[in-house]
Amino acid sequence: MDIDDLAKRVMAGERRAMSRAITLVESGRADHRAQAVELIEALKTSGNTALRIGLSGTPGVGKSTFIEAFGMFLLDRGLKVAVLAVDPSSTRSGGSILGDKTRMEQLSRQKDAFIRPSPSQSHMGGVARRTREAIAICEAAGFDVVLVETVGVGQSETMVAEMTDLFLLLLAPAGGDELQGVKRGIMEIADIILVNKADGELKSTATRTCADYAGALKLLRKRPQDPEGFPKAMTVSAYTQDGLPAAWEAMETLSDWRKEAGHFDARRAEQARHWFLEDLRAGLLAQLDRDPEVKAMVQRLGQDVAEGAISATAAADEVLAAMRG
Amino acid sequence: MDIDDLAKRVMAGERRAMSRAITLVESGRADHRAQAVELIEALKTSGNTALRIGLSGTPGVGKSTFIEAFGMFLLDRGLKVAVLAVDPSSTRSGGSILGDKTRMEQLSRQKDAFIRPSPSQSHMGGVARRTREAIAICEAAGFDVVLVETVGVGQSETMVAEMTDLFLLLLAPAGGDELQGVKRGIMEIADIILVNKADGELKSTATRTCADYAGALKLLRKRPQDPEGFPKAMTVSAYTQDGLPAAWEAMETLSDWRKEAGHFDARRAEQARHWFLEDLRAGLLAQLDRDPEVKAMVQRLGQDVAEGAISATAAADEVLAAMRG
Repeated sequence: MDIDDLAKRVMAGERRAMSRAITLVESGRADHRAQAVELIEALKTSGNTALRIGLSGTPGVGKSTFIEAFGMFLLDRGLKVAVLAVDPSSTRSGGSILGDKTRMEQLSRQKDAFIRPSPSQSHMGGVARRTREAIAICEAAGFDVVLVETVGVGQSETMVAEMTDLFLLLLAPAGGDELQGVKRGIMEIADIILVNKADGELKSTATRTCADYAGALKLLRKRPQDPEGFPKAMTVSAYTQDGLPAAWEAMETLSDWRKEAGHFDARRAEQARHWFLEDLRAGLLAQLDRDPEVKAMVQRLGQDVAEGAISATAAADEVLAAMRG
Repeated sequence: MDIDDLAKRVMAGERRAMSRAITLVESGRADHRAQAVELIEALKTSGNTALRIGLSGTPGVGKSTFIEAFGMFLLDRGLKVAVLAVDPSSTRSGGSILGDKTRMEQLSRQKDAFIRPSPSQSHMGGVARRTREAIAICEAAGFDVVLVETVGVGQSETMVAEMTDLFLLLLAPAGGDELQGVKRGIMEIADIILVNKADGELKSTATRTCADYAGALKLLRKRPQDPEGFPKAMTVSAYTQDGLPAAWEAMETLSDWRKEAGHFDARRAEQARHWFLEDLRAGLLAQLDRDPEVKAMVQRLGQDVAEGAISATAAADEVLAAMRG
């Protein structure tokens, strides 16, 4: 594969090249990995930067409908929008799902939109790297907004927050008791809580829910990277599109403020350093899986340890000594 | 240091040897580490096994008083009791605290009791290995029960549960609202919940609290390693000693059942395998700190990554390539 050519075509915004590039970064093959690293380095020359927005929400909250409506809203403002999905719990095989494109049917047909479903990988380390690299590809291809959607499973929200500039939490109108279902950790990474379905019969419930969340957010300590009034809770309706302009305005206000205050770039630098160390750690640990002799040794000593024939520490030292050669 | 001699003296139950052995496994020095591995291997010949009991409880629940009362109760039954403390949040310097022995004054004076305070280490990996090895030392020295006490901070409860046979959660009498303060994850690792301070004015509150927890435990899925009626909630009073015989009986019932059903040994084997892999991973990651050249390279590339001069993945690959030589 001619990586220079692929990089050029990605930077020209060619959809097929983008898809090929993402397929490349998703591959676990060693030769593909080397090419992926080369590609990502080459794409750094584009100089493009997108606003990276993380989005989480529990099933049934209307996430696809929201992304479709919000995406169309941004396209109407002349912005190019990419949507990436992260689902580390996915056990699907085959590497892609039809569902993602069909559930955002209108958006997927637009020439300034790019939608990439989550791959079949279930290993979180792989998911993180793949997603970061897919973001870099969309950014180099000239997209203005990259939406990274995640399902609320395990550590995936924290991971997505570590690779995006803003984090949206999409919630459904709910009675007071259900508020407790939102984990404190998620409240703490959310920049904007959007209570969806603020339309029709649910409108007043959504308004009340929004006020409840606003109250809960006030209890959190103010973060240095936030201007007055953030994090905030707002109502939206993906169905009527009410609230979408105000939500987008809040996102712009927040990112403009952070850019001026220096938090935006500082956070990206910190994120880059974080992922460098994560990649390094993952790479070291991957040694255990790569060498068949090491693997066999780990297997054998694991059995000895389980049987009490050798202590865990002594067995670990034995493997480490063998790996040092 | 003559490790064979130290091992023999530990297996003879000599207190001073036990203390020296634990100091050795707590050391971070490379030569001490090698000796510690040798010691733990040598101690495997003792053939002694203790019942390893993990214990957690929030501050103010009366943990020290409970351990003192429970320890004396076990001594009265002719059992030898060791108490180890785990506090990964500890920032104390000097390696030991006077507090642990003075807060269990009566127990610490008994010849069949051994109390070891938590060391000053704050690194969880180190804490885990040190605690496992200290358990092995107490076990080899012929103790019948090893109580591993942890404060409810971060991952320490899960860690202690991964190295013990039973896990006790000590809670205070509380109003209904406060029940929610117990994290679900902790409820799931607890084998027996003990509501302490079931005496005097608090007795009826303790009984109600106990019933509430019993109800909450019923909502959890039954675990295959549990007989009928477990996990269970009981009341105790460290002050009047009410409930201690029943609590000990429950612990014996549970461990006897697990031994007969094969879960006891299977779990120990699984734990040993778990710690072998953890030690192995920690050992691999420690390479990043050991070599000054690697450290300097990580530092320099971390800066380059933060400035956007190189991608996280390419920088990680560069370090990994350099480490492979």
